[in-house]
Amino acid sequence: MTALLQCSSILLVEYADSGMPEERHFSIKEETLDVSSVPAGGIVIQLNHISADPYLRGRVKSKGKHPLGTPLRGFVTGTVISSDHKAWKSGDLFGASMPFVTVQMLTASQVKETLMWKLTGIVDREQLSLGLGILGMPGSTAYGGLLDVLAAKKGETLWVSAAAGAVGSMVGQIAKNVVGMTVVGSCGGEQKGKLIREQFGFDHSVDYKTVSTAEELAAKVRDCVPEGIDCYFENVGGIHFEAAMSLLKRHGRIAVCGSISSYNSAKPEYCKINISNMIYSFQRVEGFVCHPWLTHQKGEFLKDMAKWLKEGKIKPQETFFEGVKSWPAAFASLFKGSNLGKVVVKVEA
Amino acid sequence: MTALLQCSSILLVEYADSGMPEERHFSIKEETLDVSSVPAGGIVIQLNHISADPYLRGRVKSKGKHPLGTPLRGFVTGTVISSDHKAWKSGDLFGASMPFVTVQMLTASQVKETLMWKLTGIVDREQLSLGLGILGMPGSTAYGGLLDVLAAKKGETLWVSAAAGAVGSMVGQIAKNVVGMTVVGSCGGEQKGKLIREQFGFDHSVDYKTVSTAEELAAKVRDCVPEGIDCYFENVGGIHFEAAMSLLKRHGRIAVCGSISSYNSAKPEYCKINISNMIYSFQRVEGFVCHPWLTHQKGEFLKDMAKWLKEGKIKPQETFFEGVKSWPAAFASLFKGSNLGKVVVKVEA
Repeated sequence: MTALLQCSSILLVEYADSGMPEERHFSIKEETLDVSSVPAGGIVIQLNHISADPYLRGRVKSKGKHPLGTPLRGFVTGTVISSDHKAWKSGDLFGASMPFVTVQMLTASQVKETLMWKLTGIVDREQLSLGLGILGMPGSTAYGGLLDVLAAKKGETLWVSAAAGAVGSMVGQIAKNVVGMTVVGSCGGEQKGKLIREQFGFDHSVDYKTVSTAEELAAKVRDCVPEGIDCYFENVGGIHFEAAMSLLKRHGRIAVCGSISSYNSAKPEYCKINISNMIYSFQRVEGFVCHPWLTHQKGEFLKDMAKWLKEGKIKPQETFFEGVKSWPAAFASLFKGSNLGKVVVKVEA
Repeated sequence: MTALLQCSSILLVEYADSGMPEERHFSIKEETLDVSSVPAGGIVIQLNHISADPYLRGRVKSKGKHPLGTPLRGFVTGTVISSDHKAWKSGDLFGASMPFVTVQMLTASQVKETLMWKLTGIVDREQLSLGLGILGMPGSTAYGGLLDVLAAKKGETLWVSAAAGAVGSMVGQIAKNVVGMTVVGSCGGEQKGKLIREQFGFDHSVDYKTVSTAEELAAKVRDCVPEGIDCYFENVGGIHFEAAMSLLKRHGRIAVCGSISSYNSAKPEYCKINISNMIYSFQRVEGFVCHPWLTHQKGEFLKDMAKWLKEGKIKPQETFFEGVKSWPAAFASLFKGSNLGKVVVKVEA
C-alpha cells in the first residue's frame, strides 16, 4: 500500500539583514511523499498551521546562520497521521517547534528531541490554531512573563506594549481578568485601541503613533495612570523602554521579551537607562523567553490557560493567512503593525 | 547633679549641586549639653564614629531638600551613656542611622523610630568602628546584594567595581571566601589592585584608570575571565555598567547599589543598554539598597558577618580621619578615590 501526500516546505533562500523581509527571501518547495510506513517507534505528522512570529526576524539575518536553501523552523500545529510511538496515537493534535515542512516522518529519537505538546482534549480540530497563540509560544510568554518574571499582584498597575498583538493581548487579559490589575495597553491606531478596551477589557489604551519621543509617550501613559506603573511588559523597545523606566514606581519591574522596533535594523539599537534611579527604588529589568513555561519546567501554563479560555477570561484574537504560500506575506505583516492578535498561516487555503 | 558634655554637630550650610563637595558646604556647631537626666523610657547616647558614605552626595544637593543650617544624618556608631529603656543599658555599643550630633538625648518614641542595632558582645570598644563597615551599612549592602539580589553561586564568576572600597572589598571577600566564586575586582591604581589580590584574595584586579571606554574596560576584564561574567556588583556606573553588560553570560545578573561616577554631576547620567541582548539570555539588572538586610527583614547579616570576621574570611580595611572637624575632608576624599576600604571619622581626635 502506498499513501502519497503533498508536502510543502518554506525555505530561506536569501538573508534579510535590514529593512522589511520580502517574498524574495523565501521559497516554497513542493514534493510528494510516500507516508505508508511509520518509522519504528516514530510518528508521521501533518501540519495544520504555521506561525509567523517577530522573533524569527533575527533568524533570517545572516548572523542567524540559518543555512540558505533549507526549511525555516518555528512554531506549528499539526495532527498525528500514524504512530508507532506509545505517547502518540493517530488523530492526536499537537503544538510544536519544528521545521516548516507540512508532512514529516519522525523517528523515535526525533520525537524525543522535538518540543511537542499535546492539545488533544484541550481543543478540537476547529480551534487547533490556538496552539500557535494562547496555547503556544505567545500564551506561555504572557503567562510566564506576567506571573513569574513580573510577579504581578492584584491592585498593581501594568503597562503592556504591542497590546493588540499575540503576546500583548494575552498579557493584558490575564492581568485584568485573572490577576486583577489596572491595565494600560499601547498600540498603533484607534482601531486597535478600541479592540483592547472593548474586546479585551483593558482599562486604558495609548496610541503610540501620535507621539515621537519617550517623554511624549510617558506623558500619554501618565494621563491614564497618574501614579505611574508597577509593571511594564516590554514587546517593543526603543522609546517605549525609556518611557517605561521614567514611569516605574518603587519596586517596579520590567519584563523584556521583545524589542520589535529594532528587529529590522542591521545594527544593535541602544536605549538610555539611568541606573542611579533604580537603586533606592529597588527596580528590576529582566529578559526572558517562554521556554521554561512552554516546557512546563515552571508553572502550569497549558492547564491554566485552557481553564481561563473556557471561563471566558481570555478571548483569542487571530489574523489568518490562507495557504503555505502566504507565509512570507504573513511574516512581513508583523512589522507593518497591520494585524490584530496572533498571525496564523493555515496550511490548507 | 549636673553632667555637662561637649557636643558637636555637622551642619549642611550650602548645597553642593555639582563638582566636589568642599569645606564651605558644611559647618561644625559646638555646644555644651547637660545630660544629667534621662528622658522617661529613653536613652542618652554619645557618638564614637561618624561615617562618610558616597550615597550622602545626593543628600547635599538642593534636590535632596535637606534644610540648610541643620545637622546632616547618616550612619554612626556610639555608646549608651545612661538609659531608662528596657532594651538598652549603660555601656551598650551600637550602630545607627542618626543625626551627626555627638551627644543626643532620645525619648522613648525617638528610640523606637531610630534604626539602631546593638553591637555589644559582637565587637568591643576598640573594634566599634566596624559598625560603620562590615557590621553596618556597607556590610549589609555587600551581604544582601551578593547573596540575595545576585543569588551568587559557587563556581560562578563575579566582577565587582570600586573593589577596594567599603562595599566592594567585602563583596569580593564574601564571594571568594564564603561562596567560592572566581572574583575580578576593578579599582584605580596598582596599590589598590595589589591590596585586593594579596590582602583580600581576589583572583584578578583591573585598573580602570588605564582605560577610557567601555570596550577597553571590558577587554581588560575579559583578559582575566575569557568566558565572561555571571554576576556584576555595580558601585560605579557609566562605562563600568556598559562593559559589564557586554560581558554578561546567559542567566547573568547585575546588582546596582551605587553609581559613584555620576554623583558629582548636576544632571542625571545615562548608560546605553541593548535590551534585545537580555531576552534570550534571561539577564537581569536590579537596583537595591541595604535596608531589608540591615533591619533583618531578610537574612542574618549581623550574625553571619560576625562569624566570617572571626573565622578570618573577611578582613576589615579602614581609612581613619581624626575628629568631627575632619568630616568634610573625609567626605570629599570619597570622590577622589584616595582611600582604602571604609572611611571612618573618629569623633575624638
